[in-house]
Amino acid sequence: MNDTPDFSSGLSCPIPLDQYPHILLAHGGGGKLTQRLIAQMFLPQFSNPMLEPLHDGAIVTINGKRFAFSTDSFVVSPIFFPGGNIGELAVFGTVNDLAMCGAKPEFLSVGLIIEEGLPMDELWQITQSMRKAAERANVKLVTGDTKVVDRGKGDKLFINTSGVGTIPEEISISPRNARIGDSIIVSGPIGLHGIAIMSVREGLEFESPVLSDTAPLNHLVAKILAQTRGIHVLRDPTRGGIASALNEIAAASDVGIVLREDALPVTDEVQGACEILGLDPLYVANEGKFLSIVDPSDTTKVLEILRGNELGRGACVIGNVVEDHRRSVVMKTRIGGNRVVEMLSGEQLPRIC
Amino acid sequence: MNDTPDFSSGLSCPIPLDQYPHILLAHGGGGKLTQRLIAQMFLPQFSNPMLEPLHDGAIVTINGKRFAFSTDSFVVSPIFFPGGNIGELAVFGTVNDLAMCGAKPEFLSVGLIIEEGLPMDELWQITQSMRKAAERANVKLVTGDTKVVDRGKGDKLFINTSGVGTIPEEISISPRNARIGDSIIVSGPIGLHGIAIMSVREGLEFESPVLSDTAPLNHLVAKILAQTRGIHVLRDPTRGGIASALNEIAAASDVGIVLREDALPVTDEVQGACEILGLDPLYVANEGKFLSIVDPSDTTKVLEILRGNELGRGACVIGNVVEDHRRSVVMKTRIGGNRVVEMLSGEQLPRIC
Repeated sequence: MNDTPDFSSGLSCPIPLDQYPHILLAHGGGGKLTQRLIAQMFLPQFSNPMLEPLHDGAIVTINGKRFAFSTDSFVVSPIFFPGGNIGELAVFGTVNDLAMCGAKPEFLSVGLIIEEGLPMDELWQITQSMRKAAERANVKLVTGDTKVVDRGKGDKLFINTSGVGTIPEEISISPRNARIGDSIIVSGPIGLHGIAIMSVREGLEFESPVLSDTAPLNHLVAKILAQTRGIHVLRDPTRGGIASALNEIAAASDVGIVLREDALPVTDEVQGACEILGLDPLYVANEGKFLSIVDPSDTTKVLEILRGNELGRGACVIGNVVEDHRRSVVMKTRIGGNRVVEMLSGEQLPRIC
Repeated sequence: MNDTPDFSSGLSCPIPLDQYPHILLAHGGGGKLTQRLIAQMFLPQFSNPMLEPLHDGAIVTINGKRFAFSTDSFVVSPIFFPGGNIGELAVFGTVNDLAMCGAKPEFLSVGLIIEEGLPMDELWQITQSMRKAAERANVKLVTGDTKVVDRGKGDKLFINTSGVGTIPEEISISPRNARIGDSIIVSGPIGLHGIAIMSVREGLEFESPVLSDTAPLNHLVAKILAQTRGIHVLRDPTRGGIASALNEIAAASDVGIVLREDALPVTDEVQGACEILGLDPLYVANEGKFLSIVDPSDTTKVLEILRGNELGRGACVIGNVVEDHRRSVVMKTRIGGNRVVEMLSGEQLPRIC
């Protein structure tokens, strides 16, 4: 198409090829390598004001109205897991990404990449789950695409969902909006989704099994946004867990974040599984929890709304936004020390969503 | 989530499991099995007025304005092929789907599913191609997602693109709009993309290699829509070729379609390759051609605009919409006979896009 060399774009790959000649699993893990791939390879190519790498979706303006637009591919393995399956996960995942932009999710697309040989009945179960999930989230699945790849060239089923939502005029939610003094609220116990998946993969057995927390957060978010004005940032901490999400927010807002270890809601089952698997719950994926970064004057109100809803029953304040140690997250440990909570590095939990 | 059995949705899989216990490659081929999967499994679950199975995208209304919303996953193998690569194919593919709805493509999302081990430099080349393709089509890539799957669980790279476009108020394009007497125009020689891919896979050599016709059609479509009022249907005949596209339109509009074999634009190279490979060019995928079904009063004007553009240089009338043999396509052969042109059955060309 373009025969003259394009010097503006750089002629050589911006990722050091001697260090990373090939894509690693960790490039998809939601941690440091994912961030570098996005920052060094994709952003310089696709740079435009709407491409906000640290947000769950883009905010675009058409005819003076703002919309959120988001995409997510789901490659979770196994495709059926305690508490859910890839179908509802794919619907709720994109619904939540839109909700985290302050948007009302309206329409979703569904792109299926099926591996030849997938049992038809499993596809049927997943299709039904998607319908029920869409009903529960009150979004419409309006367009789709189905591709089939040969056996051994896929893994049962990958699902992409993309979504469009409308943003009410008065709403301004962004990972750049955290302010010194804000409270950090998590809507409930962390790590359930990741541990549900890992416990199946590793054959862990619990007295009561850990179930994925996959759920649509849009109705609860809408209620909070309707009743308060102090929400600055919303984020669902999926891949990379709350550690990675908070690091991204600290960097985007140029603030420090302090977490209190004794305030972190972790169930005994998740804590136990993390110890067996050598995982830190801060880095384990969630699919039905969200972080709110809130003006201190609204903290009590937001907690009250959250706790009045089944999806926010276990909400609590886990930390604060501070002026110190900008662009990083520090945890005050139970024994009174401080430890830096870095972004996920490497691939702790591959194919968790 | 829902503990009571849901009888309304049917308890058993609507695809006969004794006949199709597993997904076959042909379920993704764009022909009969794909159609049945959509019609029997997906549509009853996702039924809503905006889900138009026979269109390239959904048309949704938000605040009184109409938008097109479309999704497509690209699983083409190989990912680099004569005339292009999976990156530009993914951008142009969704741009064209939006254009075929009569929309102006505005924003695209990009979801990458990368197989561990993909050479970093190949990802870089594909990223650059996507940027150039977006510039050429004048769309913005505003949001993305990157997943990595383990080696042997994917095939180098799959790309989903979803897109949003705005539809001007006066435009009404739909596969249901074909009318008796309309002309059927194709914008140029058919089968180039499919043959470009198959020739690499099969190791065919040509004096001058067949190149994929991958190209953005939105500018050309916009020009036609601005200068004429007689366009009833637009369709880019990708998977399944023009035979499948015209069968879908005949069914959606409840009309008959007559094709004239002597009018079909097929290059000598494509004809020769089809003979060697045992393919019929009517079923071979295109990525830079489109069908216009046009009021007879506008036929000359549309041809003139097409032929004045590099992407429509070889445009010609290939048939008409008729009252006879409704819901089917018949070809008048060179030797004066009639043959029914069925929808693609089975998987003629797997993973062509």
